[in-house]
Amino acid sequence: SIVVPKITNENENKTNIFNNIVQPIIAELIGTTFFILIGLFGACNGDNKNSSLTAGFSFGFSLMILIASFGHMSGGHFNPAVTVGVLISGAIDLKKGLLYILMQLIGGSMAAGIFRLLSHTTTYQRCRGGATFLVTIQTPKEMGGIITDRINWWEGVCIELLLTFIFVTVILMVSINHKSKSNIASIYNGIALCVCIFASNKLTGGSLNPARSLGPAIFANVWSHHYIYWIGPLFGASLAGGFYRFIWSINDQNTFDNK
Amino acid sequence: SIVVPKITNENENKTNIFNNIVQPIIAELIGTTFFILIGLFGACNGDNKNSSLTAGFSFGFSLMILIASFGHMSGGHFNPAVTVGVLISGAIDLKKGLLYILMQLIGGSMAAGIFRLLSHTTTYQRCRGGATFLVTIQTPKEMGGIITDRINWWEGVCIELLLTFIFVTVILMVSINHKSKSNIASIYNGIALCVCIFASNKLTGGSLNPARSLGPAIFANVWSHHYIYWIGPLFGASLAGGFYRFIWSINDQNTFDNK
Amino acid sequence: SIVVPKITNENENKTNIFNNIVQPIIAELIGTTFFILIGLFGACNGDNKNSSLTAGFSFGFSLMILIASFGHMSGGHFNPAVTVGVLISGAIDLKKGLLYILMQLIGGSMAAGIFRLLSHTTTYQRCRGGATFLVTIQTPKEMGGIITDRINWWEGVCIELLLTFIFVTVILMVSINHKSKSNIASIYNGIALCVCIFASNKLTGGSLNPARSLGPAIFANVWSHHYIYWIGPLFGASLAGGFYRFIWSINDQNTFDNK
Amino acid sequence: SIVVPKITNENENKTNIFNNIVQPIIAELIGTTFFILIGLFGACNGDNKNSSLTAGFSFGFSLMILIASFGHMSGGHFNPAVTVGVLISGAIDLKKGLLYILMQLIGGSMAAGIFRLLSHTTTYQRCRGGATFLVTIQTPKEMGGIITDRINWWEGVCIELLLTFIFVTVILMVSINHKSKSNIASIYNGIALCVCIFASNKLTGGSLNPARSLGPAIFANVWSHHYIYWIGPLFGASLAGGFYRFIWSINDQNTFDNK
Repeated sequence: SIVVPKITNENENKTNIFNNIVQPIIAELIGTTFFILIGLFGACNGDNKNSSLTAGFSFGFSLMILIASFGHMSGGHFNPAVTVGVLISGAIDLKKGLLYILMQLIGGSMAAGIFRLLSHTTTYQRCRGGATFLVTIQTPKEMGGIITDRINWWEGVCIELLLTFIFVTVILMVSINHKSKSNIASIYNGIALCVCIFASNKLTGGSLNPARSLGPAIFANVWSHHYIYWIGPLFGASLAGGFYRFIWSINDQNTFDNK
Repeated sequence: SIVVPKITNENENKTNIFNNIVQPIIAELIGTTFFILIGLFGACNGDNKNSSLTAGFSFGFSLMILIASFGHMSGGHFNPAVTVGVLISGAIDLKKGLLYILMQLIGGSMAAGIFRLLSHTTTYQRCRGGATFLVTIQTPKEMGGIITDRINWWEGVCIELLLTFIFVTVILMVSINHKSKSNIASIYNGIALCVCIFASNKLTGGSLNPARSLGPAIFANVWSHHYIYWIGPLFGASLAGGFYRFIWSINDQNTFDNK
Repeated sequence: SIVVPKITNENENKTNIFNNIVQPIIAELIGTTFFILIGLFGACNGDNKNSSLTAGFSFGFSLMILIASFGHMSGGHFNPAVTVGVLISGAIDLKKGLLYILMQLIGGSMAAGIFRLLSHTTTYQRCRGGATFLVTIQTPKEMGGIITDRINWWEGVCIELLLTFIFVTVILMVSINHKSKSNIASIYNGIALCVCIFASNKLTGGSLNPARSLGPAIFANVWSHHYIYWIGPLFGASLAGGFYRFIWSINDQNTFDNK
Repeated sequence: SIVVPKITNENENKTNIFNNIVQPIIAELIGTTFFILIGLFGACNGDNKNSSLTAGFSFGFSLMILIASFGHMSGGHFNPAVTVGVLISGAIDLKKGLLYILMQLIGGSMAAGIFRLLSHTTTYQRCRGGATFLVTIQTPKEMGGIITDRINWWEGVCIELLLTFIFVTVILMVSINHKSKSNIASIYNGIALCVCIFASNKLTGGSLNPARSLGPAIFANVWSHHYIYWIGPLFGASLAGGFYRFIWSINDQNTFDNK
């Protein structure tokens, strides 16, 4: 009768490894692929007039439904910047976090590859394969229409950094913080991505996510200022994790220390 | 006094048959009619500039409110692909599923017939009766504007397949899976349809639903590549059902086996 | 000591009359005014390109927040058609219902009056004072652009009837029906109005509400086919109330009869 | 052993001061900065055709996610008008309210400064630095196109006043009133701001918030009719607070008095 519980323990171990490592990693891989695939198709649908609204709703709402579906397995990051923020906040361990980031980068590349495969060259080139780049602003007709001006690299870094800082702060507050976490966190997270893309789509393309920028860059071969989409989001997310740890959740810690 | 409980049993049987078969089938019939009717009117409202946003919100939000209204009776499928996915996931029996599919096809045709009856010929023809077809892409003016290119049949199949795969996966996760089902599943399901239509409206028309494609095809007599809207969604939904059964919910099953 | 409870009873009576009659009626009056005022400003904002989306979101989201705010006092009808549907479903008594309808018509007129007062003549005339009327459809340029065609009166009646039927059915199911009522009914009700206006804005103006049509008709003096906006919504809502009573909620009644 | 509880009391005092004053004030400062920053970037994204929808969704959804994130610390006002309304309703004390307003004005100015720093002059000037001003209406082409007409100062005051009245009423009802407060108040508050901006964006710019108007006015040096954005919102919010206290919540008070 000693043998039986041992086997049970092995089964439990298997189940634990499956639940704690295998399934979360598959969820991040598939979830990121789905999330970025829907977003790329939505953002590049040839509807130039509404690009900010369509891009924002496509990526944001897509994130919302995939967090609702896969969040119970992996937390539903689908974004290396989010994983970095959660790492710094202390809610995930380093090894798992690195595996997540690897899966997200593979998922984003898979999405971009499928998008290339299923897009006509005309459509694909018009939006430069869904890649993020610094937008060239043209003076509107009623003001001359001649001067064109490009977003600077440091403006791009700051915009991506600031918006990712806000985005990851919202995620940490509604998903992890004890006093404000919500059972509809997926709704808030999705809406947060919507507005951050509304804000930045016509400036930096609205990435906030290295995995969302890397994949299309590979397949469309658009590498100009690509480093912006790594430095901005990752540094913004780190700041968000730090602020969360030392300002927003200090409240919880004080409470814990007194008890 | 034996007679009285017998009558009660008969009443209970009647009530059970009504609750389990008659009412669900009426709900699928009326629900699908309402869902597709609102969607067709919204997608064909002559607002060419915003067609993706308007079509997506019309079909997606319409699905949302009708699942909220009729979901407690039938589950609120309104889509043969969803019923196939739920069948494979094991949450409905075959006989009931086939009745659902029949009702959905009749409902979609009723919606398309009412839409024909209440539309002026001008409006009706402009959007080809709300039928789904492979869109012809024109090079934008700033890139020449001459080359026109049509989505291929295999691209159409893959896009419908992939998006239905994602759509049905979300439905199964938020409505059926024990660890992730939500009391606002109707919100997630509706939003999922929104984004899938944002992504595909300018390519395949964004069907994901044979009942939504069959009805308008009948009344507008648009049959070109119609098979795409059966093969893509049904195969995508089958894949989603299989993945759900063998990957996403295996977790639940392991837990059940150990207990 | 008999006197004291008597006073308490009088106070209780006063409180009851206030709670049951006075406050609900004020809530319907103010709520309808707010609802239609925001809707008129939103629908007539000179943004011709997006009129369906903007009109739908303005009226629908406005309804959503006002039901959330005033629904606990009056139920949040703000629409004679909704009150008729609820009357037939049996969830409100006739006298109170008639008072509601009176308040809604006054509220709609107040909103239209304030809208006239605060609008410039240019803007006001461009959208004909926010009045609902049968839209004239013009053949698009690429199809000739010459033929113009007006929605017929019977098409208008049918569209308003059908959409109000769906709208009121959703309201009854998510707010009143025991098996499907939801604590976020205001969300579903608002979204339901959104999609019904997406569907009909370019055809009948998307009223579904005699109070929304009466007020602007008075101040802008637009009475062409005005009867459509009474017959369609009221008949559609009556059908919804009847269907609810004899088909959708029969389930509840059977259950009740057996117990 | 007397010393130990004393120290504990000191710690408790520190924790209380931190929880009751320091953290709420930081939350209002950072929250207002984030809220207005996203809103300004979204409203000025060069997407002229959809300005009402994009501006409304950017400011409204941004408010929604920041209330969800910081509301548990400070209530999530981010708007001097809201703080005035809550003050009059009696749910916050004067000293704290004044500190909130100070933080909000600083936050709005920080947002406008960051926006100036990260915007190109072309984009920045096109939307006049995101400042709110009375819009000049031009007769549409099909009606002549010559007459241009500006919103009057008193129309501007009335529109801002009325919409803030509605906005703050909704906030008080869904966040504070015992009978109607909701656990998804942040959703309703965000949607309320969306529709109020849909309604007023093409007339007054849709402020409803002195902090949102002050910051951009400072950096873009646009002061024409600036007083409107203080008088309208603050007076509207005061009315909302008064109505709430003496009409909407009297119900609660009666109930309390009887018990």
